[in-house]
Amino acid sequence: MGNANETIFDKILAGAIPCHRVYEDDRVLAFLDVNPISFGHTLVIPKERAAYLHELSDESSAAIGRVLPRICRAVLQASGAKAYNLLQNNGSSAHQAVFHVHFHIIPRLADSGLGMEWTPTRLVPEIAAELLEKMRAALSALP
Amino acid sequence: MGNANETIFDKILAGAIPCHRVYEDDRVLAFLDVNPISFGHTLVIPKERAAYLHELSDESSAAIGRVLPRICRAVLQASGAKAYNLLQNNGSSAHQAVFHVHFHIIPRLADSGLGMEWTPTRLVPEIAAELLEKMRAALSALP
Repeated sequence: MGNANETIFDKILAGAIPCHRVYEDDRVLAFLDVNPISFGHTLVIPKERAAYLHELSDESSAAIGRVLPRICRAVLQASGAKAYNLLQNNGSSAHQAVFHVHFHIIPRLADSGLGMEWTPTRLVPEIAAELLEKMRAALSALP
Repeated sequence: MGNANETIFDKILAGAIPCHRVYEDDRVLAFLDVNPISFGHTLVIPKERAAYLHELSDESSAAIGRVLPRICRAVLQASGAKAYNLLQNNGSSAHQAVFHVHFHIIPRLADSGLGMEWTPTRLVPEIAAELLEKMRAALSALP
């Protein structure tokens, strides 16, 4: 934590690069994605510098959570979309391009939006038990 | 709001259907997805019944936001993944299958995870101005 490098979002937060600002408060900024994959594609970022969601403070993450429903309502109203995806990528192999936490709100319209490949498997009890043991240990070790 | 129908997640919340519980507090439940698309695929849901994120209360959404970083850390530790996606779908055409808000935490592993199609365009000033005007009006109309 705290070792994330400066990105273009820091320059936007500092006002050195302009953005199409949708919403701003003490901890959060929302603005239009300049490379939208659909009409109304919006980004929501914390002002806190963190590359990945798991490195973000509880406070910044809660502040984003609090305003997401209202920003989603605004995106729906402006775009006319009825459906949308919220997506937040962490790591190059998970399609992250800017290493400052950002949540995409992506309206789903007839001919544009987030296409995805979804290949479900079946959770087996042995795997579930192994995962739960490790996750609960990780969670109980947290402050 | 308040008119979302009962789903399988209500039965899980009520304990009528078991789940592999990862985390729980007054407002939030996290459990393993029984149809994972990768090892460690986890769901985080509000206890409040809401079909879509834009219908969820600020309080429930903030409560989810607050615990997401720590749950992500636990998922990474348990799965061994270094990358992951957070995804939350709203509407059938946006791949939503259960109509109770849920956030997917999907580890990205060498051969599994979330595949996506991303077709960026270029935001033009006229479109940006139109969107911003509507979004700001929508946001200022909120309580």
